[in-house]
Amino acid sequence: MSEEKEVKLLDNWASAFGVRTRIALAEKGVEYEYKEENLSDKSELLLKSNPVHKKIPVLIHHDKPICESLIIVQYIDEAFPSKTPILPSDPYARAIALFWADFIDKKFYQYAIRVWRLKKGEELEETKKELVENLRTLEAELGEKKYFGGEDFGFVDIAFVPFTSWFYSFQAFDLLSVEEEFPKLAAWGKRCLERKSVAKSLPEPKKVYELFTARRKELGVE
Amino acid sequence: MSEEKEVKLLDNWASAFGVRTRIALAEKGVEYEYKEENLSDKSELLLKSNPVHKKIPVLIHHDKPICESLIIVQYIDEAFPSKTPILPSDPYARAIALFWADFIDKKFYQYAIRVWRLKKGEELEETKKELVENLRTLEAELGEKKYFGGEDFGFVDIAFVPFTSWFYSFQAFDLLSVEEEFPKLAAWGKRCLERKSVAKSLPEPKKVYELFTARRKELGVE
Repeated sequence: MSEEKEVKLLDNWASAFGVRTRIALAEKGVEYEYKEENLSDKSELLLKSNPVHKKIPVLIHHDKPICESLIIVQYIDEAFPSKTPILPSDPYARAIALFWADFIDKKFYQYAIRVWRLKKGEELEETKKELVENLRTLEAELGEKKYFGGEDFGFVDIAFVPFTSWFYSFQAFDLLSVEEEFPKLAAWGKRCLERKSVAKSLPEPKKVYELFTARRKELGVE
Repeated sequence: MSEEKEVKLLDNWASAFGVRTRIALAEKGVEYEYKEENLSDKSELLLKSNPVHKKIPVLIHHDKPICESLIIVQYIDEAFPSKTPILPSDPYARAIALFWADFIDKKFYQYAIRVWRLKKGEELEETKKELVENLRTLEAELGEKKYFGGEDFGFVDIAFVPFTSWFYSFQAFDLLSVEEEFPKLAAWGKRCLERKSVAKSLPEPKKVYELFTARRKELGVE
């Protein structure tokens, strides 16, 4: 049995964090067993593999679990070094990549996950403003580069591109048009989608929209 | 001029995040210029070096800034590889170290920073409970090992040991006795303090207590 077959991914189709790990595995050409988790009825394997956070994604390699999406992507990069690297080898370039991935998790995500859950009002306006501010920071960092790291698709692209599946919903819910307000980010997203690893890992934006719509109904937003 | 002299650290004596970077620099024997920041009147250099978060610590190496304490520690490990490594070289062991450092930032810290700021009441009890729960998780992870990574002082120790300076305050404010409730963590803390790199980097617990006390007065907690 080849090394690759010893890889399992506990994931959920709609998880932007899971998408990161799927892209990284695809970039490295790693074959793996995909296990879809029902997040309202988590498997014993998930609870045992990630007893601290009880969250997907979890990568299991040779029966050893690795948790937290950015740590999993780093692990994949290091455990399967034969293919193109995901993180650059230069320490400073690595630190910059880690910084922007961390920014996406700490800043961008907290607003992106809340903005579509809020009813009209001050809190929504405040959240939208912060989201826009963070997108502006990310667009400025991208600048005229092809990818966040320069000429090569890499760590920050993997960290951020899963959220491009949310842009359709932002527009459909009349929150924000990334296409109009952040044309460079929109173009970068399309460029990433030309890669097989991304195209086959990202969920269909309309399916994400349906999921968000159902959740908004539950929350009484619409 | 040696390479080391090209290192500056923008920091504040009381910052647990800053302490991490000081320990890492000491472990690697890197000489550097220490610049104390007044957090209520941040320097131009800090604002220019960390325009996104505007926070200390910032490491400046050959005029290039690196931000976020865990990323700085990783950078120090990679940019000064000659001395004992801080992160292990095995990908799985690295992932585990990154996971626990991330746990300290995401889980432990949010309760540790709030618990001494709260007046008596339900919120304090809830926060204390979560803090204790997280300390229990960390003590279980440490187990009978000498350091978090095993026989060698490393990344998770550097991530967590700065907070041992807060234990005295937790006890003095009648919140929690780490010594009594978590004897293994207390013993580990003392073991770490035997290292020169830690001893010279940690602030005096009583000075931290004075700072917290002043802040509690401002907040009307005492």
